[in-house]
Amino acid sequence: MANPSQTKERIVAATLRIIGEDGVAAVTNRRVAQEAEVSLGSITYHFATQNDLLRESLHAFVVQETRRFTDLAQLHCTGPTTPQEAAALVGQVAADTAFDSEHIAPFELYIQAGRDPQLRAAAAECFAAYDQLAASILGALGVPDPERMAGPVVALVIGLQLRRLATGAATDELVDALLLLTGTHS
Amino acid sequence: MANPSQTKERIVAATLRIIGEDGVAAVTNRRVAQEAEVSLGSITYHFATQNDLLRESLHAFVVQETRRFTDLAQLHCTGPTTPQEAAALVGQVAADTAFDSEHIAPFELYIQAGRDPQLRAAAAECFAAYDQLAASILGALGVPDPERMAGPVVALVIGLQLRRLATGAATDELVDALLLLTGTHS
Repeated sequence: MANPSQTKERIVAATLRIIGEDGVAAVTNRRVAQEAEVSLGSITYHFATQNDLLRESLHAFVVQETRRFTDLAQLHCTGPTTPQEAAALVGQVAADTAFDSEHIAPFELYIQAGRDPQLRAAAAECFAAYDQLAASILGALGVPDPERMAGPVVALVIGLQLRRLATGAATDELVDALLLLTGTHS
Repeated sequence: MANPSQTKERIVAATLRIIGEDGVAAVTNRRVAQEAEVSLGSITYHFATQNDLLRESLHAFVVQETRRFTDLAQLHCTGPTTPQEAAALVGQVAADTAFDSEHIAPFELYIQAGRDPQLRAAAAECFAAYDQLAASILGALGVPDPERMAGPVVALVIGLQLRRLATGAATDELVDALLLLTGTHS
């Protein structure tokens, strides 16, 4: 039998899948229980309200993504890296990110936060985590004023990923846009 | 009694409101008919499939938004304008765009296009219209290489609008980001 922390992880993973597949409105305790293969009672045990469940799912996604990007940055930024190489790497990572349902879910949760102010603090934490990650990568690359660049870089990547999701477009322009933004185009 | 074109407009407007309020999954003929105050039959008369309805709603939103931004650009770009003034104007327009349900709807439709390839052509048309608009405004401002800048500027604005929707953040950073991207920061 799964231990409580595994159960919680399975509930969160199932919630992200359901949101990605059918949107926030499709998240019901019954469907989450079925998808996560846990009892109905274990959902209410771990998450007192639906808001708790959505908030923690968004948080879990960002923790996971931040870890993934940090690992990648450490893996690739050990030697001297040019901004061109770094932009190419980000483009590669973006291209490798399949838009499976777990990766569609955060977009739905950001929109839901527009409707439900109780989700906004969690959304703000997500964006702050992305900002911090972007600033540290930009800083490591020697881009001037990394703190100021971080927000725009995060917005650019999210905007282009949304376009890629919506249109099936390639990620080539992400690389180009990052180079434009970091002022390294000639 | 409403004429056919008014009926169609009401159906589309109702669809955008419903999507904004509760997501794409909430769009049923019954609910659209109720919200638009039209008969169930008039929905199937104007839109053979639900996909047609979603596609035309997305298209109608973009036509409306493009017209709004073009009017604003013509209104404000009559005299010589500095990029700083233009960025401040875009920030002002963004701040004035209330995130009512009609303005949340396109985000939901972009995500839905990620799930349903039949919606992708309409989404691609939307982004192309935004690109064209951005290129013409950037060109009028004397920004070098406006065609190349257009895509990144559109992505940046969409990414920052999504963040503003999700977190309730201010639009100050949009102005800053546009200045960074157009290379006019010092």
